[in-house]
Amino acid sequence: MQTYKAPLRDMRFVLNELHADAQPLPGLEDFTPDVADAILEEAGKFCTERLLPLNASGDEEGCRLENGVVRTPKGFPEAYRAFREGGWTAMGADPAYGGQGLPAGINKLVEEMICSTNLSFGLYPGLSHGAYQAIEGHASDELKAAYLPKLVDGTWSGTMCLTEPHCGTDLGLLRTKAVPQGDGSYAVTGSKIFISAGDHDLTENIVHLVLAKLPDAPKGVKGISLFLVPKFLPRADGSPGERNRVTCSALEHKMGIKASATCQMSFDDARGWLVGEPHKGLRAMFTMMNSERLSVGIQGLGAGEAAYQGAVAYARERLQGRALTGAKRPDLPADPILVHPDVRRMLMTIRAYNEGCRALGAWVARSLDVMEHHPDPAERRRAEDFCALMTPIVKALFTDLGFESASIGMQVYGGHGFIRDHGMEQYVRDARISMIYEGTNGVQALDLVGRKLPAHAGRYLRSFFHPVLAALDEAIDDDDLAPLAQPLSKAFGALQLATAHIAQKGLKDPDEAGAAATEYLRLFGLVALGYVWLRSAKVAHAALKAGTDERAFYEAKLTTARFYMERILPQVAGLLAAVKAGKGAMMALDEAMF
Amino acid sequence: MQTYKAPLRDMRFVLNELHADAQPLPGLEDFTPDVADAILEEAGKFCTERLLPLNASGDEEGCRLENGVVRTPKGFPEAYRAFREGGWTAMGADPAYGGQGLPAGINKLVEEMICSTNLSFGLYPGLSHGAYQAIEGHASDELKAAYLPKLVDGTWSGTMCLTEPHCGTDLGLLRTKAVPQGDGSYAVTGSKIFISAGDHDLTENIVHLVLAKLPDAPKGVKGISLFLVPKFLPRADGSPGERNRVTCSALEHKMGIKASATCQMSFDDARGWLVGEPHKGLRAMFTMMNSERLSVGIQGLGAGEAAYQGAVAYARERLQGRALTGAKRPDLPADPILVHPDVRRMLMTIRAYNEGCRALGAWVARSLDVMEHHPDPAERRRAEDFCALMTPIVKALFTDLGFESASIGMQVYGGHGFIRDHGMEQYVRDARISMIYEGTNGVQALDLVGRKLPAHAGRYLRSFFHPVLAALDEAIDDDDLAPLAQPLSKAFGALQLATAHIAQKGLKDPDEAGAAATEYLRLFGLVALGYVWLRSAKVAHAALKAGTDERAFYEAKLTTARFYMERILPQVAGLLAAVKAGKGAMMALDEAMF
Repeated sequence: MQTYKAPLRDMRFVLNELHADAQPLPGLEDFTPDVADAILEEAGKFCTERLLPLNASGDEEGCRLENGVVRTPKGFPEAYRAFREGGWTAMGADPAYGGQGLPAGINKLVEEMICSTNLSFGLYPGLSHGAYQAIEGHASDELKAAYLPKLVDGTWSGTMCLTEPHCGTDLGLLRTKAVPQGDGSYAVTGSKIFISAGDHDLTENIVHLVLAKLPDAPKGVKGISLFLVPKFLPRADGSPGERNRVTCSALEHKMGIKASATCQMSFDDARGWLVGEPHKGLRAMFTMMNSERLSVGIQGLGAGEAAYQGAVAYARERLQGRALTGAKRPDLPADPILVHPDVRRMLMTIRAYNEGCRALGAWVARSLDVMEHHPDPAERRRAEDFCALMTPIVKALFTDLGFESASIGMQVYGGHGFIRDHGMEQYVRDARISMIYEGTNGVQALDLVGRKLPAHAGRYLRSFFHPVLAALDEAIDDDDLAPLAQPLSKAFGALQLATAHIAQKGLKDPDEAGAAATEYLRLFGLVALGYVWLRSAKVAHAALKAGTDERAFYEAKLTTARFYMERILPQVAGLLAAVKAGKGAMMALDEAMF
Repeated sequence: MQTYKAPLRDMRFVLNELHADAQPLPGLEDFTPDVADAILEEAGKFCTERLLPLNASGDEEGCRLENGVVRTPKGFPEAYRAFREGGWTAMGADPAYGGQGLPAGINKLVEEMICSTNLSFGLYPGLSHGAYQAIEGHASDELKAAYLPKLVDGTWSGTMCLTEPHCGTDLGLLRTKAVPQGDGSYAVTGSKIFISAGDHDLTENIVHLVLAKLPDAPKGVKGISLFLVPKFLPRADGSPGERNRVTCSALEHKMGIKASATCQMSFDDARGWLVGEPHKGLRAMFTMMNSERLSVGIQGLGAGEAAYQGAVAYARERLQGRALTGAKRPDLPADPILVHPDVRRMLMTIRAYNEGCRALGAWVARSLDVMEHHPDPAERRRAEDFCALMTPIVKALFTDLGFESASIGMQVYGGHGFIRDHGMEQYVRDARISMIYEGTNGVQALDLVGRKLPAHAGRYLRSFFHPVLAALDEAIDDDDLAPLAQPLSKAFGALQLATAHIAQKGLKDPDEAGAAATEYLRLFGLVALGYVWLRSAKVAHAALKAGTDERAFYEAKLTTARFYMERILPQVAGLLAAVKAGKGAMMALDEAMF
């Protein structure tokens, strides 16, 4: 049986203690800590009561394509209705379209809960939100008025149709065509694959955002346009009318997220409308991709949290062997496996990842809010730089660690983790996809070294390096924090060296940057987690000194910070060596010899 | 479509070039390089033609329990018959019982091929071999005569029945009872779970080796005896007679190895015979466990090789993007992804793991042969020490890397790896079990630090440290090898420090040894791979200097050695730091705070 309890205390910690500002951002004054608490509590309740019970059954049953219509697993339509009626589809949307205008800081925490309890379910509203953003950012007022309120209230849902059988990362190769019909609409024709929520029975209409080429399109990625193609063409009164010529031709059979309908879609002169300018579809799509990438990172964290809770529950209840230092529970036939150092190593590792990722994710989410709401343009720009820099890191790091955590959680169960009964193996299968979609983690690493590092002569980097330097300066002379600041300082030194290496070598030879990319991203990510752990420890020390009545919580924070710094962060040494090794051994092998 | 071609060239390299002896071991003179080649080639053919085509279909179909009988997937009974008729079940067995007396050095390479092409299939004969070893090592002559020839010719198969629902690692808790019947037989009663090949339709009889307690058994692990319980009681003429009271009560639903029948078994006054002495069943079981652990390590390598070949095939054929340094194939719409450094990083990583593990596994296998056949008792003892030391390392390291490789192989495919069509996701699901069974990898690490390091005042260690020191001494002054010897020397220094740390701290406090165990095992394993890579490079340099006509092969060996030393081995720095960090942050957290 899968188990989950929303980690509300830690969520409040990152939201109200770690990243709290002296005063709320203009326009977000209503979202006081009390309001945030109430929202998180309610979300936790919904996820635990409605989504978690459908997680294993949804995986078991999967989706079916029947007479051209996709059926989601038992219970999904009812859960979606409750989700919609609870207003959860409107969370992050603009009040102008019926949204609740929730800060990203809160929104991303709710997303984490959804991903922990039912990742497959979460993809349906998740994709809608992506579609919402692309339309909101780039479509005409007419399209906005017709589609956004429906996406916001959740009666309609959205998709992103990018991938084709022969092209995924390299969108320049795509073949889907859009021909102007003279009435402002376009006839869209082509095949798309891997379309999440491409068809399903949860909403009365589905709004596809489709990349396609106009007849006069230049070659490559500069000739791609974005189109809005609804499943049903809206009538004048806004209700879904005539069926459009877009169909789900097949469902993919996948390793995981089986309750998410991953569709092959056929567009056959389907009627669509241009979103944004001709040939500039990638820009519009990337608006939504960046936000989606953060959300995919959060999926990794969600998996990690679910794995942690499952593993802890089992480690408490499974009796096997005796503590190496003598029986801890002589009243029982054996000790709970939680007494064994190696089991604790596994649990502490996931815990350090989760709390670190939650703190880092909350910082990025907070920066999204600053970007949008801060009155000072310099602050907005700094926040934008920071989000641009951290997006690939959050996406790749969190999903790598999420998958690793799911696998560790399973390992705690031994053989009982490999069989389906406890649900741990589902977390491993589900978590694996997040390392792939919305740009593989290798593509994220290339984005980091190829675009984000060199942008504006390294300006993005400063949005991270400056706060780290300031925190280290302050902590190194603080008796409480120095033991944590020392390993971080060393790791940060490694990051600076690696950055210099890439800046120097990569400029001359892009293969050098490419060869270093994945290890550099991990190095960067581990330092970023180290930084939020240092700051978390600072908050915890302050609370303990102030005589908090939650000593156990803050002491656990300090123990976990120490675990991270001592046992995980030192991996940066090996990563730096790999970065410095260069492309030599990687590019030398003759193609024929692979 | 899954793809496989037996890596015969590399197998010949480890067998005939890397671990070749000046003269063959007495009793193994017949297995000349030519004979070995012929066997490997034949095995490769069988695996590719008969086992690989059933791998994906077997996974899709799984096993079924029908009217108390387990049905394996379509094609499995026919493939097993061909396997048996080809003499493959007899490979490693004693000619006295109809076996072929194949050296372990060859045998383990054949096992690798089986695991690459169809891990589920391989478990059926694999378990039989374990049963063979336990009976051969510990049973009475009468039982040997009755059962061994049948296990060897494959008409009967075997199982290991250890685990019960409440006890896996801690066998002291087991509840299955064996009551003497006065006629030399015992009535065995109890429930066992996770029994691979517990029931199936491949053989005419199944021989269960069952751990159970006699009525007068002392408590705990010192009260466990081993029993042989056949599915059908043999008649006087040796044919299967009366049905014994042992049944498969259910099949487990698992993440992977779905074509392997993982059974819940009920023994209900089933008739059995004692194997070995009363209350000394664990010793007998461990005979078979140690050999099984090496074989499970080889499963990891098998998965890694399959993942590599699948990933390379896709990287050659998938066109996406252009090389960062300019188009490599302007004649095509895009370059094959093999041109991208990050794709090469993934492929080179798996390749370095595979070839390293194959070389290390071959060394251990060779030592098994020395243990058994060398005329010099000192050599035999050294080989035995080495096998004892390396068993947990091979089991845990190879399976960790095999799972990682399978996941990397899938990543090369992007979204196409997550769907079932290409078969890459099956490798990930199948490979995951090997980290768990035959003792979880955490248990292997405890075996290493708790039993193998302290044994005979560190004598086992010398069987590895001495050859490493000798190789480093020689290589450090060799211009060709020094660039590889330097990082290995540094890594070996880290291993020595980590060993000293554990010897010192772990002696006083077993939790300290437990806290360091997993990282120590990995550190040890990476150094061991570094050592075989150094030796492989030495062989390659010699061949190139001698003017070999296989330059490309040996140059690829050198490139891969360099990749390993530069990009993977430096991970030891982080592992040493983790070992030295001690148990503090791991054991400090209050149980209630997890």
